[in-house]
Amino acid sequence: MKLSTPVLRMKSSFIREILAAASDPNVISLAGGLPDEKTFPLDILKPVMTKIPEDVSLFQYGPTQGYGPLVKHLTARYEVPNHHKLLVTTGSQQGLDLIARAFFDPEDKIVMEAPSYLGAMQVFDLVQARILEVPQTDEGPDLEALEVCFATQRPKAFYGVPDFHNPTGVSWSLATRHKVAELCLAYQVTLIEDAPYRDLRFSGDALPMVSSFCPDQSLVLRSFSKIASPGLRMGVVSGPEAWVDALIKVKQGADLHSSVPVQAMLLGLLEHPDFDAHVAKVSDLYQGRYQVLAKALSALEDYGCRTLPTQGGMFVWLTLPDCDTMALAYRLLDQGIAAVPSDVFYSGDKGQSALRLNFTNATPDKLEQAVMRLESVLKSLAPKAAVGGE
Amino acid sequence: MKLSTPVLRMKSSFIREILAAASDPNVISLAGGLPDEKTFPLDILKPVMTKIPEDVSLFQYGPTQGYGPLVKHLTARYEVPNHHKLLVTTGSQQGLDLIARAFFDPEDKIVMEAPSYLGAMQVFDLVQARILEVPQTDEGPDLEALEVCFATQRPKAFYGVPDFHNPTGVSWSLATRHKVAELCLAYQVTLIEDAPYRDLRFSGDALPMVSSFCPDQSLVLRSFSKIASPGLRMGVVSGPEAWVDALIKVKQGADLHSSVPVQAMLLGLLEHPDFDAHVAKVSDLYQGRYQVLAKALSALEDYGCRTLPTQGGMFVWLTLPDCDTMALAYRLLDQGIAAVPSDVFYSGDKGQSALRLNFTNATPDKLEQAVMRLESVLKSLAPKAAVGGE
Repeated sequence: MKLSTPVLRMKSSFIREILAAASDPNVISLAGGLPDEKTFPLDILKPVMTKIPEDVSLFQYGPTQGYGPLVKHLTARYEVPNHHKLLVTTGSQQGLDLIARAFFDPEDKIVMEAPSYLGAMQVFDLVQARILEVPQTDEGPDLEALEVCFATQRPKAFYGVPDFHNPTGVSWSLATRHKVAELCLAYQVTLIEDAPYRDLRFSGDALPMVSSFCPDQSLVLRSFSKIASPGLRMGVVSGPEAWVDALIKVKQGADLHSSVPVQAMLLGLLEHPDFDAHVAKVSDLYQGRYQVLAKALSALEDYGCRTLPTQGGMFVWLTLPDCDTMALAYRLLDQGIAAVPSDVFYSGDKGQSALRLNFTNATPDKLEQAVMRLESVLKSLAPKAAVGGE
Repeated sequence: MKLSTPVLRMKSSFIREILAAASDPNVISLAGGLPDEKTFPLDILKPVMTKIPEDVSLFQYGPTQGYGPLVKHLTARYEVPNHHKLLVTTGSQQGLDLIARAFFDPEDKIVMEAPSYLGAMQVFDLVQARILEVPQTDEGPDLEALEVCFATQRPKAFYGVPDFHNPTGVSWSLATRHKVAELCLAYQVTLIEDAPYRDLRFSGDALPMVSSFCPDQSLVLRSFSKIASPGLRMGVVSGPEAWVDALIKVKQGADLHSSVPVQAMLLGLLEHPDFDAHVAKVSDLYQGRYQVLAKALSALEDYGCRTLPTQGGMFVWLTLPDCDTMALAYRLLDQGIAAVPSDVFYSGDKGQSALRLNFTNATPDKLEQAVMRLESVLKSLAPKAAVGGE
């Protein structure tokens, strides 16, 4: 049977290959965006799970929008206004997929920062939308380029990860947040604010969500994969009621609804008095690892490598002198380190050569070892490939 | 934000309205396809669930194909051959959706029996496929019409529910099964065999699956909603490796993977020595209810109503003299019974007037009461609306 056009066009996924190789126990993986398993709140979950089989209704078909008590809890937690609505999804990845399907016809335009989250590119590719890229600066999207893009291309929506961006770790400044909302309002572009890492802040003060400046023009995606457990597959989308109703219609075809016992598990977690302390503990752990990695990486400055400081999230973006990042990633794998090369995060032209390094899943000594191995590879390449481009 | 073309085209769902009304405690609902909550195997699940938090890896990201030990178990259980593969899905509804997205471009043709499962029409509508309908006889699809359709329309696939069809309860005869497979092979049409009710057989002998006669030309969908619990949202698709690989690619964008703790719960259920006895007990319960409903419905023959006997599943299809079935369903709701009118199960021309009656979710006395109320409505309509068409 012939594949559908968007599936035929799918590139073979290099990141899948990298992640497969990364499961080798001899490889130190900085490749995935995996939380540390030790952070999963199983102590809180244990009594919650014991109670679940006591409520038989959790095992029946449920509403597409989500398990009632969870919908109520999340509506209050995120202060969803009356004319807005939320939808519980099978991970926030499903939220993204539903948005793409509910609102995008082939050739409809979606703007993203470059580089950008792979899973977002994937869902917009699947509906054959046109992805337009705007470069990212240290403070968020390049605002001039964004306005030119909005004015000349008339896109439907702008997808952004304003807090601890994947892959770069960049957080948008307050001025950028205001300006992006202003542009979205002025050009009637919907803001799709993806906030999976927002709660993983370990220093500095949280800035308002961009959508708070243009709420009726925004869809917001939140995930429980980073602060609770990714295996549960729980996320939530919120926004104006009519838009969320459209998502609910598509979700009905997609999977009827998300697993109800899992929604009850999530509710038990969120309602637990220790949950906030749990999230703070996770952030603290990651801060320690980030500091170890950042310090180790500073030794690579001699090779023309740079990183930006981050106040949270899961990733460091190590920029490199111009080189073939794919080839470099394979060289690194040979030396037992997995990292994701920058090229995969661009839909169009590749930007500055870089590696995405995850600091949440490896222990401090593994992080240090990984950087030492990385240094030896950079040394062996210099001055030709890795440093040669300068 | 403007909706995408397929979502704009979606009809407002009458069945959603009916199901919403059916949740009124004064309404006896024969409308949904809901298992009886009392059948959920919570005794088996309880110890399984207690153990789940002991395995931290269940809470990490998992493989898109499914939780390894479950994939292994299901591969053995369904004797999936080496050159085939299976994929665990968020309910079998997701399997259908992935098939539509992986293989269908707009205007690609899919054949279904008429009437047919609403959720299947929905996913093929969402990819803007063209649904071609072939009438259903008491033994399955009209084979002559099917061959003409295959020969003249060159469809990509044929979607069928050969065991205890939704909405009619019809099971395909052995001869029909052979012939459909033969036609699929001859015309290179993929068979999509949806088997959610297959294990709910309470009398007679199981017939071979249609796909067993054309395995390399088939995708098979199985569900655990009817024999375990629909709230879990667990299903599985199997078929030739290359096809399932395409489904896995789409699933990666759709939700990364299904909830891992739920997959482990399902595995615990399926491996439990009492699980087969549990399924037998469920079928026995439903047989008793079916017999009560069938006997009560025989009193409606005077109004020109007919049913076909069934040996399993969840539905009885009550054919009526020609009438406006939507209007009838609203009249019934006024009298406190919810049933689904036949019109909603047709994509094109409406067939013979009928009601889909579910017999698994109401107790025997509620079933009898429902039929008495139905009779009083039919009486009040005769000879004008309900019986007038004859």
